[in-house]
Amino acid sequence: MREINASIPFDKRLWQEDIAGSKAHADMLAVNGIITASDNAAIQSGLDSIYAEYAANGVPEDLTLEDIHMVTETRLRALVGEPAARLHTARSRNDQVATDFRLWVRNATHEIDAGLRAFQSALVTRAEEHADSIMPGFTHLQVAQPVTLGHHLMAYYEMTKRDRSRFADCRSRLNQSPLGAAALAGTSFPIDRTATALALGFDGPMANSLDSVSDRDFALEFLTAAAQTALHLSRLAEEMIIWASQPYGFISLPDAWSTGSSIMPQKRNPDAAELVRGHAGRIIGCMNSLMITMKGLPLAYSKDMQDDKPPVFEAYDLLALSIAAMTGMVANVTFNTPRMREVAGSGFSTATDLADWLVRECGMPFREAHHVTGSVVKSCEARGISLSDITVDDLSAINPALAGCNLPDLSIEGSVNSRTSAGGTAPMRVKEAIRTAKKELEA
Amino acid sequence: MREINASIPFDKRLWQEDIAGSKAHADMLAVNGIITASDNAAIQSGLDSIYAEYAANGVPEDLTLEDIHMVTETRLRALVGEPAARLHTARSRNDQVATDFRLWVRNATHEIDAGLRAFQSALVTRAEEHADSIMPGFTHLQVAQPVTLGHHLMAYYEMTKRDRSRFADCRSRLNQSPLGAAALAGTSFPIDRTATALALGFDGPMANSLDSVSDRDFALEFLTAAAQTALHLSRLAEEMIIWASQPYGFISLPDAWSTGSSIMPQKRNPDAAELVRGHAGRIIGCMNSLMITMKGLPLAYSKDMQDDKPPVFEAYDLLALSIAAMTGMVANVTFNTPRMREVAGSGFSTATDLADWLVRECGMPFREAHHVTGSVVKSCEARGISLSDITVDDLSAINPALAGCNLPDLSIEGSVNSRTSAGGTAPMRVKEAIRTAKKELEA
Amino acid sequence: MREINASIPFDKRLWQEDIAGSKAHADMLAVNGIITASDNAAIQSGLDSIYAEYAANGVPEDLTLEDIHMVTETRLRALVGEPAARLHTARSRNDQVATDFRLWVRNATHEIDAGLRAFQSALVTRAEEHADSIMPGFTHLQVAQPVTLGHHLMAYYEMTKRDRSRFADCRSRLNQSPLGAAALAGTSFPIDRTATALALGFDGPMANSLDSVSDRDFALEFLTAAAQTALHLSRLAEEMIIWASQPYGFISLPDAWSTGSSIMPQKRNPDAAELVRGHAGRIIGCMNSLMITMKGLPLAYSKDMQDDKPPVFEAYDLLALSIAAMTGMVANVTFNTPRMREVAGSGFSTATDLADWLVRECGMPFREAHHVTGSVVKSCEARGISLSDITVDDLSAINPALAGCNLPDLSIEGSVNSRTSAGGTAPMRVKEAIRTAKKELEA
Amino acid sequence: MREINASIPFDKRLWQEDIAGSKAHADMLAVNGIITASDNAAIQSGLDSIYAEYAANGVPEDLTLEDIHMVTETRLRALVGEPAARLHTARSRNDQVATDFRLWVRNATHEIDAGLRAFQSALVTRAEEHADSIMPGFTHLQVAQPVTLGHHLMAYYEMTKRDRSRFADCRSRLNQSPLGAAALAGTSFPIDRTATALALGFDGPMANSLDSVSDRDFALEFLTAAAQTALHLSRLAEEMIIWASQPYGFISLPDAWSTGSSIMPQKRNPDAAELVRGHAGRIIGCMNSLMITMKGLPLAYSKDMQDDKPPVFEAYDLLALSIAAMTGMVANVTFNTPRMREVAGSGFSTATDLADWLVRECGMPFREAHHVTGSVVKSCEARGISLSDITVDDLSAINPALAGCNLPDLSIEGSVNSRTSAGGTAPMRVKEAIRTAKKELEA
Repeated sequence: MREINASIPFDKRLWQEDIAGSKAHADMLAVNGIITASDNAAIQSGLDSIYAEYAANGVPEDLTLEDIHMVTETRLRALVGEPAARLHTARSRNDQVATDFRLWVRNATHEIDAGLRAFQSALVTRAEEHADSIMPGFTHLQVAQPVTLGHHLMAYYEMTKRDRSRFADCRSRLNQSPLGAAALAGTSFPIDRTATALALGFDGPMANSLDSVSDRDFALEFLTAAAQTALHLSRLAEEMIIWASQPYGFISLPDAWSTGSSIMPQKRNPDAAELVRGHAGRIIGCMNSLMITMKGLPLAYSKDMQDDKPPVFEAYDLLALSIAAMTGMVANVTFNTPRMREVAGSGFSTATDLADWLVRECGMPFREAHHVTGSVVKSCEARGISLSDITVDDLSAINPALAGCNLPDLSIEGSVNSRTSAGGTAPMRVKEAIRTAKKELEA
Repeated sequence: MREINASIPFDKRLWQEDIAGSKAHADMLAVNGIITASDNAAIQSGLDSIYAEYAANGVPEDLTLEDIHMVTETRLRALVGEPAARLHTARSRNDQVATDFRLWVRNATHEIDAGLRAFQSALVTRAEEHADSIMPGFTHLQVAQPVTLGHHLMAYYEMTKRDRSRFADCRSRLNQSPLGAAALAGTSFPIDRTATALALGFDGPMANSLDSVSDRDFALEFLTAAAQTALHLSRLAEEMIIWASQPYGFISLPDAWSTGSSIMPQKRNPDAAELVRGHAGRIIGCMNSLMITMKGLPLAYSKDMQDDKPPVFEAYDLLALSIAAMTGMVANVTFNTPRMREVAGSGFSTATDLADWLVRECGMPFREAHHVTGSVVKSCEARGISLSDITVDDLSAINPALAGCNLPDLSIEGSVNSRTSAGGTAPMRVKEAIRTAKKELEA
Repeated sequence: MREINASIPFDKRLWQEDIAGSKAHADMLAVNGIITASDNAAIQSGLDSIYAEYAANGVPEDLTLEDIHMVTETRLRALVGEPAARLHTARSRNDQVATDFRLWVRNATHEIDAGLRAFQSALVTRAEEHADSIMPGFTHLQVAQPVTLGHHLMAYYEMTKRDRSRFADCRSRLNQSPLGAAALAGTSFPIDRTATALALGFDGPMANSLDSVSDRDFALEFLTAAAQTALHLSRLAEEMIIWASQPYGFISLPDAWSTGSSIMPQKRNPDAAELVRGHAGRIIGCMNSLMITMKGLPLAYSKDMQDDKPPVFEAYDLLALSIAAMTGMVANVTFNTPRMREVAGSGFSTATDLADWLVRECGMPFREAHHVTGSVVKSCEARGISLSDITVDDLSAINPALAGCNLPDLSIEGSVNSRTSAGGTAPMRVKEAIRTAKKELEA
Repeated sequence: MREINASIPFDKRLWQEDIAGSKAHADMLAVNGIITASDNAAIQSGLDSIYAEYAANGVPEDLTLEDIHMVTETRLRALVGEPAARLHTARSRNDQVATDFRLWVRNATHEIDAGLRAFQSALVTRAEEHADSIMPGFTHLQVAQPVTLGHHLMAYYEMTKRDRSRFADCRSRLNQSPLGAAALAGTSFPIDRTATALALGFDGPMANSLDSVSDRDFALEFLTAAAQTALHLSRLAEEMIIWASQPYGFISLPDAWSTGSSIMPQKRNPDAAELVRGHAGRIIGCMNSLMITMKGLPLAYSKDMQDDKPPVFEAYDLLALSIAAMTGMVANVTFNTPRMREVAGSGFSTATDLADWLVRECGMPFREAHHVTGSVVKSCEARGISLSDITVDDLSAINPALAGCNLPDLSIEGSVNSRTSAGGTAPMRVKEAIRTAKKELEA
């Protein structure tokens, strides 16, 4: 029972938040005459000492004391005596742990945001370097149309921007204080919930005491934001793994983010990318874990909710590590741009340009232009030539109306440069996006 | 192959959005000289006719035409001829479906929000009716402290408020237009993405064409918001099921939201609540489905992403039904308040009030007051009396310092009325919360 | 990178299996002349020493050595010198870890099976004690028909029987040795895979070397069996929580498996049951984690697969703890049988008996009997009497054909005793089932 | 309410099982004198007529009749009158639906098994064709060692073998009859549960009536087996998608299992493989759905369990389609073996062979051989030569002890042929495995 019941092995991670919450609570009790100023002074100084002890030596893991709250209160009692017994006035472990955990998750959103910001910087730096570098754009992992590497990297910038905004929303929504809800019903002591809320950096107290102690939305929302971020990272990880594969040869992984083999020194296993991809599975697992645990729980507090912390801690650790690994990889990977350029030219990747040209220059309806282009490509394929080798005679053989037209520019570079629509892959557009991103990152 | 490949059996649900997107696109092509005004007029009128046809007769499910886009374009061709073949200029099915689906999800957030608002109204109405009704507050499903039924219902108001704000955030984040990203790289036609974006009610175009066609964040975020909402509903459903159980007898279910048994006419099975609880599982399953499908997909479009719609449609249907069912139940359930009041008095539920009184009136440290209260309760238990039966003599027998004190009010009503801290269960606080909620609902 | 790459913090848990695997491998190498007998002797003795060291002091967690394999080989080198460098002949870490992990999971199935057997024993013991104790049988958590407590407990015996058989199937399917698959392709050394397989208790070698190193079915199957078991435990946990709630009052939780409150000494929070219910969520999360991680991995080994162990270890720990907790609770809970009997009589729970009697004694078609019973129940309800109070006159007033019939036995006891169909709740059937179960447990 | 409550839109899929169950039940009632022979004759003939009607025209979807059971019983009443009202004697919808659904799932295991058998046949056929074809074996998607394509395909044969055995276990475990459990407690009618069990092809009746109506293990186990199978298919799908990508060029997809583009006729999008990969996500979602729904449900039947069918039906459909698609792709894909052979030679893929040779021929400890090989590879890399170009002089330059040795065969073919360990990639071993597989498939 002790083993299944005790939470101290994991909730000790909340020690800073627990002490901060107790300090704010004691100050408020004193200001409102619920404890004396001298009791409060003893409590504050005792808690400061405990902070120093934990910081130096870690939190003692005493299963008989069950959780971080009792471990700390017991230590406080040993340090300052009776005033410690007054600290728990007008609160309960139910609102205490809800407060601690919110503070922890709030800080976690800050840490993740900082990590994502660094990741974005790495993306933008490399995108700028490769705003003109041509690579194949894929759909269905088939070469589709040429794009620039800078454009491709900036797609991840956009995803990450949404990720950051989701963490910001989560942070903003969670920033209300459950402290003072007591066990579930509020209290008859003349407490000031706004005061403790503001002291702890919350925007104010939560509106309903039952909700205060039974809500774990903030943890779930952190987990869903983490899962979506992990999915984005998993997509880039997958690309890195494929790009590093010999038949692609698009990238060389930085030594620091790959492992060699004692037998094949040229081998660079993309271990970090694989772990990032694998971790996405675990983070989604963590999110599921808490959702399933919360399903169908009656109000207010149920002990099931003690299972809220392990998945959040695990997801946070895995995500923070994944972001750092991807940042390192993006910053240090070597792009083999000639190889990318070479593959971009395969698969008749400028066929769409020919069709668009038929529409624009010859007034063909698009569906017909599509059809004609198909015939041209088939003919090139049969003759073993590329699209840029075709002549006006070739075209007019397929469609007499094309006799005498000016040949379109079907080069890879021509294609890329022509995609100047908003958000398009033309280097001028990519550079524009990079400028915007840089401003956003400076903000 | 046809069977696994065709999406028309489910994506036909996007028909309104598909037509709206095509109309906006055609208008923009005409304004920018990419198609003629007369071609556009033909397209607009053809699409209007198709809208009327679909509205009247449904969308024909032709597997050979694969999806809603081709079904509609094919019909347009039949109706207006060559101009139809010009509609697909400067777009691709990749940006078209992304646009359609975003519009659909955006509307889904509106529908869900309206449903949740109605649910909140029902909660507030019943909470107002029962702002003074006393029920047991539970922790661990054990009677803990008395609360008011109004307070309990308002806890769900708060949860739902967060749910609505999550859908609002989702709506706000998704409201950027992918249209004009074309296949993945943008286009060389002089399109105006801002024009189509605004015509469709978007805030503007998405910033990166690759991201535009490969992003499904909006669908995932809709699903995570739906899952969190479903979890809240599942908690209320669980409570209703327990409350309706004979040993509780807290509620009688409305006929319309329960099923009888042909053999036991008094039986009211809480089927609707059970289905709401069960649906939470399915909605989480839907969310998982799409997360797992998206994991590790390289850019830009992969056919796996065709599996984005079934889970979103299913989750939407299940959630909309669940919200409506819970709204109906909340609005029409009969609360057996005498029975609730009776149970609220069991389990020495005002013991905390005694402890608080010892702190407040006698200056005892809280931990000691806890200890003394424990002794009092044990003594009451042994003597078969309730807490409100104790006398000053009883107290002073336990602790001589208490001789001569004024007896605390340990009645259930006294307890409830005393919890006047912000967000507490005292009726005056509950009524305050209800007033605020009403204002929010009117806004 | 070191932090994301190193697995030693968790895979050190495989140390016994790793040593056993290396000993079997070295013996086989020696027997087949691939290393000398004296090299083997040195290796065997070195590994025995390391076993003793780890058993005494734990496994050193050296991140630079990355995993349990390198930590152990490095230590072996320090102890016995050059022969250690020959141990890794004709194997690779890929087949080594697959072997270690299979051995670990195999042992985990044994441990879980033993736990489940003890749980079944507790169920059968309490079922025997309460083979005649009457409780309400519920559907929709509404009182439906009376059953015996013994019968109810034996339902969990049956579920657990299936759980054990699933673990047995998992164990049987996983018991093939990957050792000797080397990196992925097999080896050119004249190894004897059957010899190492048998030495390690496997039924034989796996048939395909690529499959040997890329398969994690055994871990997934362990997780799915664990999840299904956890679901069963969660159902019993839910029942215990509801039964312990004051309005039910069906059980008193054993002190050892509940927690009190310092303030309400009569309170017995069903913490252990709540944690068991919560853990079901986490175990399903673990299962998801690995499924998602494995999705879409190309052959053979990918580093993502390093994320196989944390979820399996976590699920095992949570499940083992959950089984032990439920066993303790079942063994020691106090059933308040008078209260159960009392509730069993509520809700006209013998209405079906009346309907069946109408069919049997009066030849009524069942649907008509249902209808008549409904009228009788309504009439009882209106008159505030119970079903067993009705007279022949009452019946004949409803249906004249019933005049002069013998009144049925509509008592709770009569109902329970009459359900003698195979698997029914009649005490004689329950005792029969208990006898069978005891024989199965002895086997 | 009607909309959330009615299950007929999906449970009508159980119509054959429902009729079969009713026929067996009626026969048993007649044999045991519970209904008359003539009533039974009317029922049997009525049910046969309904079978014919449903087979011809489908099941009418009448929401007011709620489910397949009432739809059919109502129709029976219309056809045969009063005897229909006797059919429901001694059973309940709870055991009826449990029986129907088990029968359906049992049949589903047969269908899936047949599909998997066909998939295995396709794998074996292609493996035999390519038992000698060389391809690169990958780890971390990096070229590691050469293997044969036949060997690679046979790895999937092994996975599928486990899948089939899991479905067989599921089938065997589920094959017990719930019929006769009635609502939950059994019945007082003298029914013969063994008779109905055997008539429906079950091995016998389930042992506990409460378990009979509350168990959904069989559905969950079907879903977990389906999820594991889907994961295997997703791995092959991923490989096909990568192999079809231009830089790989390992395969050409069959026209029937890919989609072209109207504009790029050479394009073969691997849509079917992508959908198979995507469907794995949805199938895991279905499994989650039911697990979450079942969590924490008290006995016996709860309406949540009505949500058991949609995920099982969906998973079955998606899996059956996925198996068929992968079978078609495997059977018809064109392997570009020269390209595979070319890539197999990249990345110094025979370096392990050199190390093994150093161990075998020169008695070097493996770790030292590894080290020496590393130096050789580095030197080759620097000189731009391949491993098979090295001379004895090169080796002795690195390690003087190697002067005068016989050069190893470091060719790709030599490497593959040498891997003759059990389960290894040498063509002789692969052919052996194919012979075994063929025998298994014939069995």
